[in-house]
Amino acid sequence: MARPDLAALDKTDPLKPFRDRFVLPQGVIYLDGNSLGALPRATAARLAQVIEAEWGRDLITSWNKHDWIALPARVGDKIGRLIGAKPGETMVGDSTSVNLFKTLAAALRLRPGRRVILSEPANFPTDLYIAEGLAALLAEGHELRLVEPEAIDAAITDEVAVVMLTHVNYRTGRLHDMARVTTRAHDAGALMLWDLCHSAGAVPVDLNRAGADFAVGCGYKYLNGGPGAPAFLWAAERWHGQMTMPLTGWLGHAAPFAFETHFRPADGIQRGLVGTPPILSLAALECGVDILLDASIAEIRKKSLSQSALFAQLVEEQLAGHGFTIVSPGDEASRGSQVSLAHEQGYPIMQALIARGVIGDFRAPDILRFGFTPLYLGYAELWDAVWVLKEIMEDRSWDRPEHHARARVT
Amino acid sequence: MARPDLAALDKTDPLKPFRDRFVLPQGVIYLDGNSLGALPRATAARLAQVIEAEWGRDLITSWNKHDWIALPARVGDKIGRLIGAKPGETMVGDSTSVNLFKTLAAALRLRPGRRVILSEPANFPTDLYIAEGLAALLAEGHELRLVEPEAIDAAITDEVAVVMLTHVNYRTGRLHDMARVTTRAHDAGALMLWDLCHSAGAVPVDLNRAGADFAVGCGYKYLNGGPGAPAFLWAAERWHGQMTMPLTGWLGHAAPFAFETHFRPADGIQRGLVGTPPILSLAALECGVDILLDASIAEIRKKSLSQSALFAQLVEEQLAGHGFTIVSPGDEASRGSQVSLAHEQGYPIMQALIARGVIGDFRAPDILRFGFTPLYLGYAELWDAVWVLKEIMEDRSWDRPEHHARARVT
Repeated sequence: MARPDLAALDKTDPLKPFRDRFVLPQGVIYLDGNSLGALPRATAARLAQVIEAEWGRDLITSWNKHDWIALPARVGDKIGRLIGAKPGETMVGDSTSVNLFKTLAAALRLRPGRRVILSEPANFPTDLYIAEGLAALLAEGHELRLVEPEAIDAAITDEVAVVMLTHVNYRTGRLHDMARVTTRAHDAGALMLWDLCHSAGAVPVDLNRAGADFAVGCGYKYLNGGPGAPAFLWAAERWHGQMTMPLTGWLGHAAPFAFETHFRPADGIQRGLVGTPPILSLAALECGVDILLDASIAEIRKKSLSQSALFAQLVEEQLAGHGFTIVSPGDEASRGSQVSLAHEQGYPIMQALIARGVIGDFRAPDILRFGFTPLYLGYAELWDAVWVLKEIMEDRSWDRPEHHARARVT
Repeated sequence: MARPDLAALDKTDPLKPFRDRFVLPQGVIYLDGNSLGALPRATAARLAQVIEAEWGRDLITSWNKHDWIALPARVGDKIGRLIGAKPGETMVGDSTSVNLFKTLAAALRLRPGRRVILSEPANFPTDLYIAEGLAALLAEGHELRLVEPEAIDAAITDEVAVVMLTHVNYRTGRLHDMARVTTRAHDAGALMLWDLCHSAGAVPVDLNRAGADFAVGCGYKYLNGGPGAPAFLWAAERWHGQMTMPLTGWLGHAAPFAFETHFRPADGIQRGLVGTPPILSLAALECGVDILLDASIAEIRKKSLSQSALFAQLVEEQLAGHGFTIVSPGDEASRGSQVSLAHEQGYPIMQALIARGVIGDFRAPDILRFGFTPLYLGYAELWDAVWVLKEIMEDRSWDRPEHHARARVT
């Protein structure tokens, strides 16, 4: 495969116009939108408006005048359209970790006789930490049981209260079959909680078709909401009346502005809210989500799979003998929107790549991650990225002291 | 008292230069900085920089390059200087409600033999709701016991695990004697948790001198961090090694980027973090806090007490016979930075005031709140505000249908 073949794909790419809706720095090939999505062109102006015209000019009256109070639900419903939610099933607020805590606690309360939370050891650590912390807090003998992906089916027994999995694995990009695992969980009487951090906006998700119970996900990856953007939580409508949230803040109250002494949960997913909504962050997130709603998730998926397959092919063609192993699934149905390579010198190699303007990231102990964001990533960039990687390997420029120096954030 | 007397005070006001550091709309007298602080002039440019130069240009590398990862601690330590914290005792993140959940759970774990959380019925509702929700979640028989302020001393018995109070009451502005109540709690073997939502940046607070154990507070009131700004949490250094946080997210881990399977808490207040820090919101909050650090909290307090006393005096002089009752304490030592008036037609009166550009707020069932923010509120504005209120009462213009219409957010 040669560069012109890839440049030709760019010419006919139906998603090409979307690149202009993002601000991307010159001289950078950005393969880390799975960690922090790029900046939408609309965001800076929208934030200036919220800051100057809403907060600055209309001050406290903006809660009504600019309907700030409705932002968590409005942005939630927009995200809902990307994940197969019905209107009124999705809310935005807090972090993914906090939303996991809420939904996991709610799910456990719906399966009071069961004590096992089932997950996998390679789940994103915060998911496991939150589950551990919740189990310790409840002090009812809950157990976080971790089994390898191949063993999950067999491990879904009648002891399991909740199966808690991340749809797309953060390190390898491995994609679970949402509908199949959810059905398996339900067949055993368990509930299904999906973490969509690496799915929402990247791969087609249909929570209701899969019959899932709860879900959470991230605003700052494929939704392009900005660093530390608020997260979302979703609960199937059938649970809205029964679910008990552990974080009973005033925005989850049936009548927050009645300032009652005792808590009464709001109807519906509103009870998943806790504190005052973060307006600036919500406005930024909405700009990112709006772009996705203008695109077709089927087109995004099609290009993503094409890009990941081409990237893997280029790695095989150009980097043979340099010690890389492709750890992402070759099978399209099992692959999210990234390709990860294992290499024993992964850390300095990634630092050398970043120094050359090819930005992916490193995950301990040995994974180089490359994420594909079809809305703003071109095909020819894949060729250029692999070419730079090849140069770094051939001239061993990765093996310089500055590339071995550890940063606070890897 | 006449308007020129107040205008004369503005001329010699040592805090007068600070008003230029805020953007304030023409024709508005803003007496609601206790609900949403005004916009600092620096914020829009700082956010544009974070959005365009940090997020947009440097993308994921900003976590190291612009030290985003340190923002929760950096802004936390700045807030810490306003509340009598030592460096390393304060962190910013999540909402006040979520931080209350964390600190209350941590405090209860430090008093395992005790089952009572003591508070007052007039505490801000989210504080009570969070405590109720936590007690239900723990299912260990914890009781949220509510007693009137006068009865708190007697109610601090050896059953009490935690005394949880808001320093300045949100409705009346009544100020607790932090040092005295804290000592009383400790004498009975209880821990002391303070909510500083209406104190931080408004009144002098010295948590360490008072010997307090835990505290939380809000970023969007007197700290001028913007709507829904992240909140802070504080824990006395002596508890850092022992405290167990219930929300064990990855940013509270000892080595977040080692991506370990099991949770190990970070040292110190870092374990109070949960999810990925909200960078845009943190940057906005820092702009607000920076202004306060340039001012003297003693000067702020002096002007605040002067403004609230003058406002109360004006109400007595100008509004006699119109049915208002001043519900805020007359005694300076017991008054925060607001004056609240009770009136049976409080809701439409406040709507009429807002329509005339005098912005306070209403709290059910009958309270009109007027907050004093000495950094950007002038003395003559007090006279003008009371004058408008007098006109509204005399011409009964409050009693129009549009002022009775209920908004979503009061």
